Amino acid sequence: MLSRPLKHSLPFSEGKGYIIVNYKTYEQGKGKEGLKLTRILEKVGREYGINLAAAVSPLDIRYYTEAAEVPILAQHVDPIGFGSNTGFILPEAIKEAGAIGTLINHSEHRLRLADIEALVRKCEELGMLSCVCTNNILTTKAAACLNPDFVAVEPPELIGGDISVSRAQPEIIEGSVEAVRGIAPQVQVLCGAGVKNGEDVQKALELGSVGVLLASGVVKAKDPEAIMRDLAKGMIRFEEVNL
Amino acid sequence: MLSRPLKHSLPFSEGKGYIIVNYKTYEQGKGKEGLKLTRILEKVGREYGINLAAAVSPLDIRYYTEAAEVPILAQHVDPIGFGSNTGFILPEAIKEAGAIGTLINHSEHRLRLADIEALVRKCEELGMLSCVCTNNILTTKAAACLNPDFVAVEPPELIGGDISVSRAQPEIIEGSVEAVRGIAPQVQVLCGAGVKNGEDVQKALELGSVGVLLASGVVKAKDPEAIMRDLAKGMIRFEEVNL
Amino acid sequence: MLSRPLKHSLPFSEGKGYIIVNYKTYEQGKGKEGLKLTRILEKVGREYGINLAAAVSPLDIRYYTEAAEVPILAQHVDPIGFGSNTGFILPEAIKEAGAIGTLINHSEHRLRLADIEALVRKCEELGMLSCVCTNNILTTKAAACLNPDFVAVEPPELIGGDISVSRAQPEIIEGSVEAVRGIAPQVQVLCGAGVKNGEDVQKALELGSVGVLLASGVVKAKDPEAIMRDLAKGMIRFEEVNL
Amino acid sequence: MLSRPLKHSLPFSEGKGYIIVNYKTYEQGKGKEGLKLTRILEKVGREYGINLAAAVSPLDIRYYTEAAEVPILAQHVDPIGFGSNTGFILPEAIKEAGAIGTLINHSEHRLRLADIEALVRKCEELGMLSCVCTNNILTTKAAACLNPDFVAVEPPELIGGDISVSRAQPEIIEGSVEAVRGIAPQVQVLCGAGVKNGEDVQKALELGSVGVLLASGVVKAKDPEAIMRDLAKGMIRFEEVNL
Repeated sequence: MLSRPLKHSLPFSEGKGYIIVNYKTYEQGKGKEGLKLTRILEKVGREYGINLAAAVSPLDIRYYTEAAEVPILAQHVDPIGFGSNTGFILPEAIKEAGAIGTLINHSEHRLRLADIEALVRKCEELGMLSCVCTNNILTTKAAACLNPDFVAVEPPELIGGDISVSRAQPEIIEGSVEAVRGIAPQVQVLCGAGVKNGEDVQKALELGSVGVLLASGVVKAKDPEAIMRDLAKGMIRFEEVNL
Repeated sequence: MLSRPLKHSLPFSEGKGYIIVNYKTYEQGKGKEGLKLTRILEKVGREYGINLAAAVSPLDIRYYTEAAEVPILAQHVDPIGFGSNTGFILPEAIKEAGAIGTLINHSEHRLRLADIEALVRKCEELGMLSCVCTNNILTTKAAACLNPDFVAVEPPELIGGDISVSRAQPEIIEGSVEAVRGIAPQVQVLCGAGVKNGEDVQKALELGSVGVLLASGVVKAKDPEAIMRDLAKGMIRFEEVNL
Repeated sequence: MLSRPLKHSLPFSEGKGYIIVNYKTYEQGKGKEGLKLTRILEKVGREYGINLAAAVSPLDIRYYTEAAEVPILAQHVDPIGFGSNTGFILPEAIKEAGAIGTLINHSEHRLRLADIEALVRKCEELGMLSCVCTNNILTTKAAACLNPDFVAVEPPELIGGDISVSRAQPEIIEGSVEAVRGIAPQVQVLCGAGVKNGEDVQKALELGSVGVLLASGVVKAKDPEAIMRDLAKGMIRFEEVNL
Repeated sequence: MLSRPLKHSLPFSEGKGYIIVNYKTYEQGKGKEGLKLTRILEKVGREYGINLAAAVSPLDIRYYTEAAEVPILAQHVDPIGFGSNTGFILPEAIKEAGAIGTLINHSEHRLRLADIEALVRKCEELGMLSCVCTNNILTTKAAACLNPDFVAVEPPELIGGDISVSRAQPEIIEGSVEAVRGIAPQVQVLCGAGVKNGEDVQKALELGSVGVLLASGVVKAKDPEAIMRDLAKGMIRFEEVNL
């Protein structure tokens, strides 16, 4: 068993690894272009039987959930409720639009500690998945104390780069997995930053994570389908060898 | 002629006044509930031949533009471009989703001066309407220098309250209109904060504004359609008397 | 023994409890007025042999450290280094000015998780005391993972109020103390929010904290010296009964 | 006459040009090192009879005003009043500490439009000098509407670089001067970004500014005194030729 059960019933297969693709505000990841990409994820996900999700712009959440069968995450939500909050992203609204959860505290959208905690609680309340992003072992440990579903460790200096964290700094993944296990074993660790291919995925899983969070490696790729297949194969290889 | 031509070709009638309804993150202004409200705006707008627009959550922009014929504005956009900007609102993306423009610098989402200027330029470049919100005469004057389509003056202490700015502080509207006329006559002034009924609208237009920006008065009303009709009638009354 | 040793050699007595007074930007807590207050702290601290510190404006750090013998903390530092950071507070600069440490993430100045972690590391590197403020048990636990000297728990709704957290929500202090003990026993818990008198102090210590962080209760008091004495006596009473 | 009278009585000579040195958080610009630099400014200012000021860290405002006769500005103040504002910079407090004014909205510390306006008002109320930094002609025009004493135009891409704005983009200075003259002739324009030597100063004045705002060119120089003399000579040359 690679992954453990989640807090809520969500469209993922227990025991399978995760690949979460963050579309950011890349030109290829929004509107019609992003829908093509989402259909590729849908196809590859079905073919390989792995857990896939896309973290997309609030503008596209309803669009993609209606047009493709890929679990959709928000990239960010704001720590607000119903009311006078012009231009902020309401957790309840991403749920109604079809998102099954959200990234929280992404490296490009850091949040205050108290707000991260409040958002994890809000996700629990709404039956949504929470994935808190962190930058090193200590912040991973801190985030795990807040009891999200996932913590995704991404050393900022490796994000968007050509070397995956699982190769450049494997000790960060191992250390994060170990730290979380000791403190909040129900929280699962994802490996972010610089993941580019199936070998990176395999390595990330070997270090104890249950999957990867990646962005440019897929979204800006010339052939995203080929990359997605390669990532999926890395996951399958790990499962064949280790499980 | 109440209003003047806009920079770009947009679905508004030249010479007519404006009512912009900000849905904020009110429960009644999102998803399916918000769609009902948008259909009310559509109906009243057609009936009275006035310029109506709704400023909605990014989650609902595509939804409402596809389902109703009301010009949709974003409530906020971020001063970013294509790229690594997880969880931010890309101006190009609100356009693709169907928005015809955006509020900028709303009282609940204040922006830095340099970012306001950059966003007004971006709206010009994308052929979108820009409406910069301000809090007093001097900031209105400053905003007008940046050459948006509209400046909406809203003294923060009156927002969401029961007394409209056109009654409580008419000198702010008059002073804003006068200041803008002297410095950037192509920029049109809207009157915000506390607008509740047709009399408030009429008064706002008499003070020299070309329309109103309001929120709770419509969105949280027991009978939004009745309120919308009353607002529209106030505008018609002004036109009958003054034009 | 009430308190445990700190990471660095600092002007505090091991085993004694702490009273930290936050001067905020109260009129009575800045410049000459604040100096009078600091001299009261000096006097009461000497008299009762307890650990006192004042968290003051950056404008007054050097002034007070030169004029009085009370350990001075900054109220905030920015996560920056030497360089092009106009108008930010450099950790190295508060040290040179005489501060022995700093509050981090105060309720009125919340910080991002990654920045809290970076600032605790910076304090360690500079041999300075770090006191991270938090709002509930889970954020206290998270903050303790970052290994500061102190975590000060302050439910925001009680800050500045008339009821101390040790009375209104004793379970938050107890829960925080217990959570920290299990995860980072070297980190010491302070009790903030609403502390007004010696009884509150005594109660806070009984719940397992090593002292209190307070502000208006002292700074805005008609007779700050009387209040300081009362707080000190509460601490002494606790020591007599429990140690 | 190079410069015009200020709103308040301040230690500057009417008619003379200005050199404002921003110490940022450079190692050479804080504490004891910064005091040496301040004494150099004092010396050169006296020798050449020009208007000099230093914009320094809040930690050093009282220190430098007590130890040297150079007008001291804050690098930033927060839009707050007396009260519960832990870790923020109170305008009243910089005044009590000896500052004669403040930079507002520096490129490294951008502020919201409404806050810039509120801070300019607060400076007026306290009899302090306000210098609003901007990034292009339109934001300069907007800032001038708020009626500060100075607007300092600094295209961000030139800040800290080797080419002064007066050489790289003279049209920005000329355009700013012209825009401000038409709208708020009492507001004076300073030229920032990349100023390195006396020729840059001379050029900046020829373009219509009344002085320069610079940082690294002086603070990080091997021989700040030589640079300061060169800057002062550039100003004198301009005066000899033009006045």
